[in-house]
Amino acid sequence: MYEGVIIEKLFTKDLRFPTSLNSDGSDAMHTHPDYSCAYVILETNTGQKAHGMTFTLGRGTEVVICAIKALENLIIGQKVQDIYNNFGDFWRKLTSDNQLRWIGPEKGVMHLATAAIVNALWDLWARLEGKPVWKLLVDMSPEQLTSVIDFRYITDVITKDEAIKILKEKEDNKKAREFDLIKNGYPAYTTQVGWLGYSSEKVKSLCKKYLDQGFTAFKVKVGQNLDEDKKRCAMVRENIGSSNVLMVDANQVWCVDEAIDWMKSLAEYKPLWIEEPTSPDDILGHAKIAQALKQYGIGVATGEMCCNRVMFKQFLQAGALEFCQIDSARVGGINEILSIYLMAEKLKVKVCPHAGGVGLCEMVQHLQFWDYVSLSGTKEGKYIEYVDQQHEHFKTPVVIKSAAYMPPTDPGYSSEMFPSTMEKYEFPKGTYWQELANNK
Amino acid sequence: MYEGVIIEKLFTKDLRFPTSLNSDGSDAMHTHPDYSCAYVILETNTGQKAHGMTFTLGRGTEVVICAIKALENLIIGQKVQDIYNNFGDFWRKLTSDNQLRWIGPEKGVMHLATAAIVNALWDLWARLEGKPVWKLLVDMSPEQLTSVIDFRYITDVITKDEAIKILKEKEDNKKAREFDLIKNGYPAYTTQVGWLGYSSEKVKSLCKKYLDQGFTAFKVKVGQNLDEDKKRCAMVRENIGSSNVLMVDANQVWCVDEAIDWMKSLAEYKPLWIEEPTSPDDILGHAKIAQALKQYGIGVATGEMCCNRVMFKQFLQAGALEFCQIDSARVGGINEILSIYLMAEKLKVKVCPHAGGVGLCEMVQHLQFWDYVSLSGTKEGKYIEYVDQQHEHFKTPVVIKSAAYMPPTDPGYSSEMFPSTMEKYEFPKGTYWQELANNK
Repeated sequence: MYEGVIIEKLFTKDLRFPTSLNSDGSDAMHTHPDYSCAYVILETNTGQKAHGMTFTLGRGTEVVICAIKALENLIIGQKVQDIYNNFGDFWRKLTSDNQLRWIGPEKGVMHLATAAIVNALWDLWARLEGKPVWKLLVDMSPEQLTSVIDFRYITDVITKDEAIKILKEKEDNKKAREFDLIKNGYPAYTTQVGWLGYSSEKVKSLCKKYLDQGFTAFKVKVGQNLDEDKKRCAMVRENIGSSNVLMVDANQVWCVDEAIDWMKSLAEYKPLWIEEPTSPDDILGHAKIAQALKQYGIGVATGEMCCNRVMFKQFLQAGALEFCQIDSARVGGINEILSIYLMAEKLKVKVCPHAGGVGLCEMVQHLQFWDYVSLSGTKEGKYIEYVDQQHEHFKTPVVIKSAAYMPPTDPGYSSEMFPSTMEKYEFPKGTYWQELANNK
Repeated sequence: MYEGVIIEKLFTKDLRFPTSLNSDGSDAMHTHPDYSCAYVILETNTGQKAHGMTFTLGRGTEVVICAIKALENLIIGQKVQDIYNNFGDFWRKLTSDNQLRWIGPEKGVMHLATAAIVNALWDLWARLEGKPVWKLLVDMSPEQLTSVIDFRYITDVITKDEAIKILKEKEDNKKAREFDLIKNGYPAYTTQVGWLGYSSEKVKSLCKKYLDQGFTAFKVKVGQNLDEDKKRCAMVRENIGSSNVLMVDANQVWCVDEAIDWMKSLAEYKPLWIEEPTSPDDILGHAKIAQALKQYGIGVATGEMCCNRVMFKQFLQAGALEFCQIDSARVGGINEILSIYLMAEKLKVKVCPHAGGVGLCEMVQHLQFWDYVSLSGTKEGKYIEYVDQQHEHFKTPVVIKSAAYMPPTDPGYSSEMFPSTMEKYEFPKGTYWQELANNK
């Protein structure tokens, strides 16, 4: 299969969108983000192109680009057959270069760079197969699927054999679930109503807008000022009613005990979860918070900045999260994310992916669709985050109908952006940034 | 103090030494390292220069340099008075840029870059004060010392008030300990006898060499092949005798249960510790290993790749390490390292710093000296790692007498390299690398 196909070129783009001008995406920790991405285009000797990215917030995108270039020589000249036949082995090579791993390992800039490349590799594979990524995954046998995973460091929670067994147990009704998915899609929640920089009027009108669209779950940013948080939560709760779901998100601003106290004060608004209450590295801290908030019916959610499968493993082992928020571009791409889904399934934790940003909705939907059809077999109490930003730059943007993500049919990972977007927003030489520089 | 002194310039150097040619520094995970560093020179408007660095293994140093440049605008133009009067606040600014923190936070490339800059800031402070860093630290009041620390995310283990209290309790015999330190130095152990790529003959002759120099503690690399490990451990044990100390280091090659089994097989050689048995991110895994190996008298040591104070906090909380191996250039410089020492002291864990590499011995000795004089008050059962490599590039290299680190008296952090070294080893334009390129 794909005999003679070789990855010949790798191009990078530093793309930045000026979202800080409208406070879009603002939270307690990231007050002025310029939603951005480090974008990768692969090209084979047969002329096939593929696209991948990792999400960033503006400054620092150039550092991730530099890291992608440091990994480039591990990609260029590779036969795609060799990659996809032993994708787990290839993934380990990519993350274990014996000089580069010192500046990771498997975390931060290096792992974001790995994600961008690996996402492009999956886009390529799906295009070669003529399928969207979710369908490529769904059609894999348990043996094939687990062959893409590096189980090193997680065998104390799940081995390859166990993973195969779990996947086999779920094979019976896959067709029916695939049919249901195509017909009804997958539930989304919105984060659009409560960015921290938004005015009360804006929050109210957004609640109405998303209620009208059929949304039943709404997330609000908290953590800068308790009185303000109470007002915003009360207002959103009033607007969405008691039967709909409210989530709150602190974006890591608190210490452990502070998180517990603060959330007790917000308990009356009945949030389903508190997201990122403290440092994304604090497994034991999250476990303490989860334990303390259980009596208030508030779950702990985290994951968008959880740096790799070893950290997720421990969050799951320690009972430190009730909602596992995998991100499509923080850990090392689909290979590693699949291992996290498998551990979550084994340890009975719900996966509710992080999305928004640039391209995160487009990519992560594929993974949650696969989880529904092939692994967990249920959508119950689960949602994919949805933010209505930056979709216009994508050739095959997400499709939301009645507050549900509808599965795409185009081949690939939905990660391809328009050339016009790249010309305008490439930093600093794109036309948008050049104009801004000239007008200063 | 220092009124009108402003940091005006920041220069970076990508310095690489061709250590892979001799297998120096080789271990089970890093088979061909080229010991390197991302080097920072700060210059004030008064012409004062200061030097800092982070250690790297060759490829990827350019990524860390790129990250240092991304942080540059937070440094240039700063009044040194504003930095040192509120160093804890300044440190938080440096690590919390609201766009850059996304590609960390506080880990990997960004935190290595932070370390290089912060190390240079401490070199600058010590030079302005005319003292070596260890003495600058020793002379600070508990209030001053704790003012440099960002306690965010660690208050569940230690607060500023507790830290001050602990430091005050240790003030009584500081002068006597300082005198002892200057006279007798601080015990070192050697890693020189057992790099994985070394032959049996080389290991034997190195054992003799370091025994003759007075060393009593010897570390050996393990983890690639159990039979080979047994042979090497038996040989080193035979050469050093039963009363001296043997440590073994696996550099992260094992899964959790594999580590336990492998170490049971090496227990007969009576190692004091197993270093880095598994992923540096696996707190719960290390705790399980520590628990299982306790009955064999083997402690768990880790830290050289532990990415920040939040991770160290949990390793300490979970009983996941018996020997805490702080590194002078992995977490965000001295400010953060002090908080780790304070947590280790409170939770009664011995700190035995990681060193070797490029400049790590030179820098970390200062911190362990401070710990002895001002915090733990004891050297009992503790050592600083010592590797006899790359010291010749430093203006004030470490001084080892009778297997003890002797405290330096020159102002600064001992981190300044010779201009001739930079001219030769800067990558790729230094004379060494140019010659290598021309001879290919």
